[in-house]
Amino acid sequence: MTIKLYELAAAEGDRRFSPFCWRIRMALAHKGLDAEHLPVRFTEKDIIAFSNQGRVPVLVDGDRTVVDSWQIANYLDETYPDKPSLLGDAASRSLTLFVKHWDESVLPPLLFPLIILDIFKNIHEKDREYFRSTREAKLGKTLEEFADRDQAEALEAFRKALTPLRNTLQDTPYLAGDRPAFADYILLGRFQIARCMSPVILLEADDPIYGWRDRMLDAFGGLARHVPAYDL
Amino acid sequence: MTIKLYELAAAEGDRRFSPFCWRIRMALAHKGLDAEHLPVRFTEKDIIAFSNQGRVPVLVDGDRTVVDSWQIANYLDETYPDKPSLLGDAASRSLTLFVKHWDESVLPPLLFPLIILDIFKNIHEKDREYFRSTREAKLGKTLEEFADRDQAEALEAFRKALTPLRNTLQDTPYLAGDRPAFADYILLGRFQIARCMSPVILLEADDPIYGWRDRMLDAFGGLARHVPAYDL
Repeated sequence: MTIKLYELAAAEGDRRFSPFCWRIRMALAHKGLDAEHLPVRFTEKDIIAFSNQGRVPVLVDGDRTVVDSWQIANYLDETYPDKPSLLGDAASRSLTLFVKHWDESVLPPLLFPLIILDIFKNIHEKDREYFRSTREAKLGKTLEEFADRDQAEALEAFRKALTPLRNTLQDTPYLAGDRPAFADYILLGRFQIARCMSPVILLEADDPIYGWRDRMLDAFGGLARHVPAYDL
Repeated sequence: MTIKLYELAAAEGDRRFSPFCWRIRMALAHKGLDAEHLPVRFTEKDIIAFSNQGRVPVLVDGDRTVVDSWQIANYLDETYPDKPSLLGDAASRSLTLFVKHWDESVLPPLLFPLIILDIFKNIHEKDREYFRSTREAKLGKTLEEFADRDQAEALEAFRKALTPLRNTLQDTPYLAGDRPAFADYILLGRFQIARCMSPVILLEADDPIYGWRDRMLDAFGGLARHVPAYDL
């Protein structure tokens, strides 16, 4: 039975932009596992109600339902140990968890001011009120106020925060060494939400991260490249 | 022939405070390798002139001289492959490099305002002019101006920057998983320069990082604990 992956979709059903869903889309390709990719919009939580929670990605593999991208990556490694590992051994898995927490705590507050209005523009019309009200409640300000920053300054702050990644990629082609693994998919997801939803140029072409992202976009036959996205 | 490790020393010769030297002191214990630990002060560069550069740590193993803590860690893994690995496999090694770059780019600007005057006070009298002039040239201000921040605010900024580490250690006892490895020694070094040189309380007792540091201080018979340091 084919694996099913429920992913967040924009106005166009095939514009998938959740960084967490991208982690798993890449992870499934890494494992060589076929999957059916099903769109879910913010206000279509009924589609994933069977998972007893409201967030994507949701993976359904036979009679198993797994939620949360980190849990799904662990599930895939445990269930398909003969396929290439996503997380590696105990040390590598734990260090990948550090990358995950770095991504999730450091990057969003610097990235979202740059792209949040583009996200708003690209999501489905029926999702806009939900998106605006939930985000504005969290931010304590309107989307427009949150995005009202000097673009050049905001970009510089985002790029500066990428220093540890940049310095690492000066010495190694992938965060996980000679071949990409889940740590790389975590960070690709962060760049992919931007690329799918916004024309903002996040990286300069001479940035080692640019070269890495390019290799990631080429991986698995261009899986992350050949999707509805801004051509960067 | 016993390995020699040249380490940065404060006024008291056995107060060793360089984070980079601490990485290697822990690494040698991890490998179960005995070493002679030799003090070098900032203005005693003649002692390590044989290494053709001016920075510690310098490791001398028979007729091999190795400098730079990252190079030394790699050298130890390559030269003593039967001893417990510091860097693990290619993926783990590359992810550890990310931790190194995170440590080196994110933490110093937030930590040093909190402790730099204490460092200045604890280094050897003969080093003070060198330390002041080199640091002030880099900072573009006096040490006193650099340290002139609201202590509570500076501490909060430092602790906030530790979020990825904190979140990781909520799920795993060590950054490298169930047992410490070089990624842990990198970060212990950063806390150890503070503990050896300053009475500032960097971590609250209920912080998962506090528990991790405590385990690190206990490792190898209390190697990092039972040294000239402030008792935190």
